[in-house]
Parts: sequence; structure tokens; C-alpha cells
Amino acid sequence: MTERIHASYWLETGADPRVAADVIAGEQSSGTFVALPNETPELKESSGARVERLRILGEVDGPSLPGGMRSNRYTQCELELSWPIENMGPSLPNLVSTIAGNLYELRQVSGLRLTGLRLPPSFAAAYPGPAFGIEGTRRLTGVSHGPVIGTIIKPSVGLSPEETARQVRELVMGGIDFIKDDELQADGPHCPFDERVRAVMRVVNEQADRTGKKAMVAFNLTGDLDQMRRRHDLVLAEGGTCVMAVLNSVGIVGLHELRRHSQLPIHGHRAGWGYLSRSPQLGWDYAPWQQIWRLAGADHLHVNGLANKFSESDESVIAAARAVLSPVMPEAPMPAMPVFSSGQTGLQAAPTYAALGCADLIHAAGGGIFGHPGGVAAGVDALREAWVAAIEGVPLEQHAMRHPALQAALGFWK
Amino acid sequence: MTERIHASYWLETGADPRVAADVIAGEQSSGTFVALPNETPELKESSGARVERLRILGEVDGPSLPGGMRSNRYTQCELELSWPIENMGPSLPNLVSTIAGNLYELRQVSGLRLTGLRLPPSFAAAYPGPAFGIEGTRRLTGVSHGPVIGTIIKPSVGLSPEETARQVRELVMGGIDFIKDDELQADGPHCPFDERVRAVMRVVNEQADRTGKKAMVAFNLTGDLDQMRRRHDLVLAEGGTCVMAVLNSVGIVGLHELRRHSQLPIHGHRAGWGYLSRSPQLGWDYAPWQQIWRLAGADHLHVNGLANKFSESDESVIAAARAVLSPVMPEAPMPAMPVFSSGQTGLQAAPTYAALGCADLIHAAGGGIFGHPGGVAAGVDALREAWVAAIEGVPLEQHAMRHPALQAALGFWK
Repeated sequence: MTERIHASYWLETGADPRVAADVIAGEQSSGTFVALPNETPELKESSGARVERLRILGEVDGPSLPGGMRSNRYTQCELELSWPIENMGPSLPNLVSTIAGNLYELRQVSGLRLTGLRLPPSFAAAYPGPAFGIEGTRRLTGVSHGPVIGTIIKPSVGLSPEETARQVRELVMGGIDFIKDDELQADGPHCPFDERVRAVMRVVNEQADRTGKKAMVAFNLTGDLDQMRRRHDLVLAEGGTCVMAVLNSVGIVGLHELRRHSQLPIHGHRAGWGYLSRSPQLGWDYAPWQQIWRLAGADHLHVNGLANKFSESDESVIAAARAVLSPVMPEAPMPAMPVFSSGQTGLQAAPTYAALGCADLIHAAGGGIFGHPGGVAAGVDALREAWVAAIEGVPLEQHAMRHPALQAALGFWK
Repeated sequence: MTERIHASYWLETGADPRVAADVIAGEQSSGTFVALPNETPELKESSGARVERLRILGEVDGPSLPGGMRSNRYTQCELELSWPIENMGPSLPNLVSTIAGNLYELRQVSGLRLTGLRLPPSFAAAYPGPAFGIEGTRRLTGVSHGPVIGTIIKPSVGLSPEETARQVRELVMGGIDFIKDDELQADGPHCPFDERVRAVMRVVNEQADRTGKKAMVAFNLTGDLDQMRRRHDLVLAEGGTCVMAVLNSVGIVGLHELRRHSQLPIHGHRAGWGYLSRSPQLGWDYAPWQQIWRLAGADHLHVNGLANKFSESDESVIAAARAVLSPVMPEAPMPAMPVFSSGQTGLQAAPTYAALGCADLIHAAGGGIFGHPGGVAAGVDALREAWVAAIEGVPLEQHAMRHPALQAALGFWK
């Protein structure tokens, strides 16, 4: 039997849902707007997309998105389609053209969101997935259990390489596990990539020589391909252990090529996720989106954080993190590490752990660490102890009684 | 004075619009959620984004998009921000992280759409733009004036290489200027790219040898980078004159690398445009989006068509086409050719020409050509004559009196 690709959607339509499902299946495979004589039954059987499931959820009076066909009622449903792999082969770019191409604009569609994706093993044969994942990240950071405690260089842009290195010095002396560039900091003339890497790695290496612990720094190498390769090589040569790329900005080919070249974990930033997801009736759920980037090679994937400063609900954050912790497919789990950030402190440790049931994650706090009255080291310590309490199931206040840094943190976290 | 990047947005906010504008400017440059001691006035002056313009359009009672801050009223406005080029340098991926990154998710935002982009000349020095554009496409197709008359191979997928070549034979014998693969047709086992190119180019070359006119065929080479390069080389070796890539599926790095390698015009398909644009309160307008792809090297850009079969309005289609025909910047026009398709016939010739004032475009019709009772040659002839009438300002019915193929087409186009 042929391998098939399965994609699920939330669909709203002013048409008969069965007709709309057939139109989408046709448009995204052998069909088009009009019946063609050479779209034979044999061709349709071999190449047509199949409606695997259509479940009516309810009806609404008006369309969620404008421009489509007019109707008195709009039906909302769950739709699952499948395609034979013969249509496009195990190719991520062509997969995306098929499952998320010209279907959002159909007149029969007044709402469409890609909610799920199930890929056949041939994709795992064609794409390598993360080279480091959870295990490799733990090895390189020396964090054998519990979360990787991280932070972000701030201000986002504007610091010189030396100013950046000074901030990093404070952090590594405070015992941080992980530091990342802001996604806006790449290779601008104010803070050239090469100078920043050299200045920062001098500090990181010195501390590693002293203590045996090397902090992982995700340098944002986002750029054109040659630039990314050259920047990666510099990070590697300077003893760095991570690079970061903004996924939507480089695209699938960019990440795939970086993965082919890279000898370091790839920290995948999701900037731009909002334009793909902020309308609940349009675009992408995180689950299918992150599968594609994991296949292409992302080791870490941002998932926002509980009680974040953005507009995303906790439910959506946890669903995203669970997706990153789930196998890409049974035959090829391709584990990656979810990255929690945005307004994070130790207060989110227990609920995050409770929701996930594991601590295979990077927890990145900015103000939650820098704001500590006892300084950065106390801030790192407090966040780490909040996780110890979470994992041991001890209430934060109780654990704080034996940990002054945590005690002091509770004052400003609240 | 430093170069600055200008981006315009349609913004809806539950906050004071001036506060919201400052939050967006801060979040996308030197600021973050909390005031930091090292975000000095000097740093803010050198690296902060500036609110250049804020014009209130009106107020609404409820938010367009969920998840943001609650308010009694939501203000809609035009917002223009600017950034110093020093923040990111002339880099398309980092430009996208900056102008379309983590701003759509802000709590102060209940609607945000990127509507315009003005780039400084350093981007034109860093990126080549289209290698062929309008002039090169006219030279290679031999169409010195009027539109390039085109069509699409259908069914979208399922035809074998030989069946595809048979369809192409009919088209080139009918005098077509341009043929494209469907965006779902790439390199699946049912119709391998290499076999398809060889079979199709045999037909195209034979016809060119006979008549001196070589039809341009846009072969969809969308895939991983090595695949795209290898496929390009095959098309070139077989005498082909165009390659096609699905822009959202390969990403900016993918297109930039293809452009660096390519000796042929790049036909840029916009599949997936719907998830970027179908909600009027979210995402991207076509004008800024196509600028990025033209800088990266797209020669042709799809703009849908008047009276199309999708949900896009004529107004939006024409705005998109005008954007493609406008200079990327005064210092570097980087002309590209808009591609009209979807439900197109000769009936759209006159209104398209009237709206654009020129015919520097590809007009692709499927059923509008194949459905002609006199056959494909008559279909091509009818579409071409409809354009002659449009350009000469002669009513279609009047022109049809002297052109039987057009006369016959009027019956089934309506």
C-alpha cells in the first residue's frame, strides 16, 4: 500500500461541508475549478486527495473571514485529508505547498486552520531531524536533570560587543546554563556578529576554564546562507555550543541547509508566529508547524510561556510544548526541547512542570533573573530552586524557607 | 545621516494608540516589557525604532482578534515606524524578524497588518533583484509587446511525463507563449521532474526549430537547495527558459540561493498567500511582501486575477499588480512581471489593461483556452485578440467581428 500524508483542519464553510471538503481535496490534488476530460477516474484514484474524516462541530450565522461565498449559515467542522506520497515525494517544501497552499483563499472557505499533520516514514529518511535534541543539549550544558536555566541578552539591540560580553560575564559568574541573543540582534553595524561572538566566548571560555561549566550561548546567526555558514564556523572555532536562527525569516531551505552544515545545536526562534496564528480561524496550529521545523533540524523550539506578556493563552502554550515533546512520528521521534520565555519567573515552574510532567525544557527569564535584589547569581539560584521545589512537589513558600535567594525572589516575582 | 527602514501598519489597539505605538516600537528595537537600566537615552536614540506617523482612523466596540487586553473601545489607526539600518544591516531575513516578528502577538494589539515598506539603497547593494524581469521575459518569449499569453498544466498532479508533454505539444502548436506547472507538481514519483523536463523540452524544442518561437515553460523545481540547483541545471541543459519556485515553501534563503545559481528567470508562486492575508486585520499586504521577494530575485509574481475563482476582491488584485509594477525603491526599480491567473479569459483583458495602464504581464488562462470549441490554437488566438482589442480601446464584440476565434470564444467565456 502506498504511503499517505494526513493533514487535519478546522474548517468553516458557507457551502455544504461535504462539497467544501471535496473542493479542498480536489484543489490541492488532481482537481481544479472545472471538470477536465483528462482527470480520469484512474488518475483521481491514484493522485486525488481523500476526505478521511468530516465531523460537524456547529453552525454560525456569519463568516469568520470575509471574501467567500454568501450563505445564511456557516458550518464549522473538523476535516482530515490524505494524499498519496507519490504526488510530491518526501519533500518538506512541496509538503507545505500541498497542505498549506492555495486552500485558504477558496470561496468555499470562511475559516481554515491547519491543526494536525501525520507523515509517513519516508520523510524521516529524507530529513535528519535535530542533531542534538534534548540529550545533546543536556550534554553540552552539563544539566543532567531539571530544566536548562536560561536568559536573554537585553536590551534587544543597541549594546556593543563589549557591553554584551559584560552582561554575559555577570550571567556566567552567576551560574546560568543558557543565554540567547534577542532575535533582533544579528549582525548589525552596532554589534557585529564576529566581534560579539569573540567578546562573549572569551568570557564564557574563561569561566568554563575556572569552573568546568560552560554556559551555552545561542548566537543569532540568521542571515543569508553563506553568512549563516561562516557565522556558524566562527562560533564553533571560538568554542561556542549553540546557534540560533529565526525560522520564519530564513525559511525551510535555509534551516535545512544550516542543519546540513551545523556541528552545533540549532535554537529555533519563532518570531512572526503571530501572523501565522493570531486569528483562531486562520493559519496554523503550532503542532503541525513545529513538526516541519524539527524534521528540518531545529533542536530547540520556542513555545512562549505560562502567564506570558503576549496574548497567547496558557492552554495554547502547553499544547505547543507538548507537541514539541511528542514524537514527530512513531518511527522517528526526533526529540527537541521546548523553550519557555516571556515574562517568566520561578512562579511558572510548578504549573509548567505539572502541565508537562517533565522538565526537558529551557526556561528563560529576563527580568525574573536580573531583577533579583541579590544580583544575577541569586536570580539564577532562585529560578533553579523554584524548579527543585516543583519537581519535588514542595510548595514554593516552604522550599523558600531553606533557600534565601528563593525567599528574596518571591518578593519581586509576585 | 543614517539610513532608516520604514514600515507602515494598520493597527487596532485597546490601549491608548500612542502607548501602543511606543510599545510596538520598543518591542521591535531596544525595548522590552520592563524598563532596563542599561537601555540608556543614548542607546534608545541610536537603536530605538521611531514612531514616524500615527493617524487615527476610527473606533470599534470589540477587538478584531482575541487574546489581547480588554477595553471598552478599540482604536484603529495607521502607524509608521522607522528603524536605523545599524540595528540589522541590509539583510532580508533580519529585516523580516524586525518588521514582522514578535509584534503581532502583543497584548496591546487586537489587529495588525503590515501595509507598506520603504527600504534604503543598501538593500539594493546587498541583493540582486530579478535577473530577467519584464525585459528579459519578453526577450526569451519573443513577445515584444502586449501580454505574455500563458496557461497551466492540468490536472495539477497525476499526469505522467509523456501525458504532460502531449498537453504541451497541443499548446505550443497553438502558439502559446508561456506554460507553467501547477504548484503541486514538483518531483513526485508519478511524474519525476527530470523525465518531465526532458519530455516537455523535446516538444518545445521541436516546435522552436520549426517556427523560431520557443514557448517559455516554468518548471516547478521547488525542493531542497541541492535539488533546486540540479533541477535548474537540467532545465538549462535541455534548452528551457524558466524555473518556478513556491516562495513561502522555500523561504527567503531558498529563493536567494536559487537566484545566485540561476541562469533563468524565476517564476515566483505565492501558494500559501491566504494564510498570510485572508484575515484583513492580520498579517501582510501584498505590497511589502512582494518587495522582499523581488529583492531576493523573483522575476514573475502571482497576483491572482480579476473576477477570480478565489475570495480576493478585484481591488486587492489590482493593488497587488500595481505593487509588482512599481519600483522596489527609486534607486533600484528591479522590475518584475505580475502573473494573472485563476478563472481568467479574454473578458478580463480590457478591465485589467484599464486598471494597470500597461500590458507588462503574464495572463494565464486554463479553461479559457482549453475550453475553446475550435481547439487550443483558437483559444490562444482568442485571448491574444482580446488583448489587442483592449490595448487599441476597441470593444470586444466589435473586434470579434473581424476575428472568428475571438467571436467563438465570446460564447463560452460568458
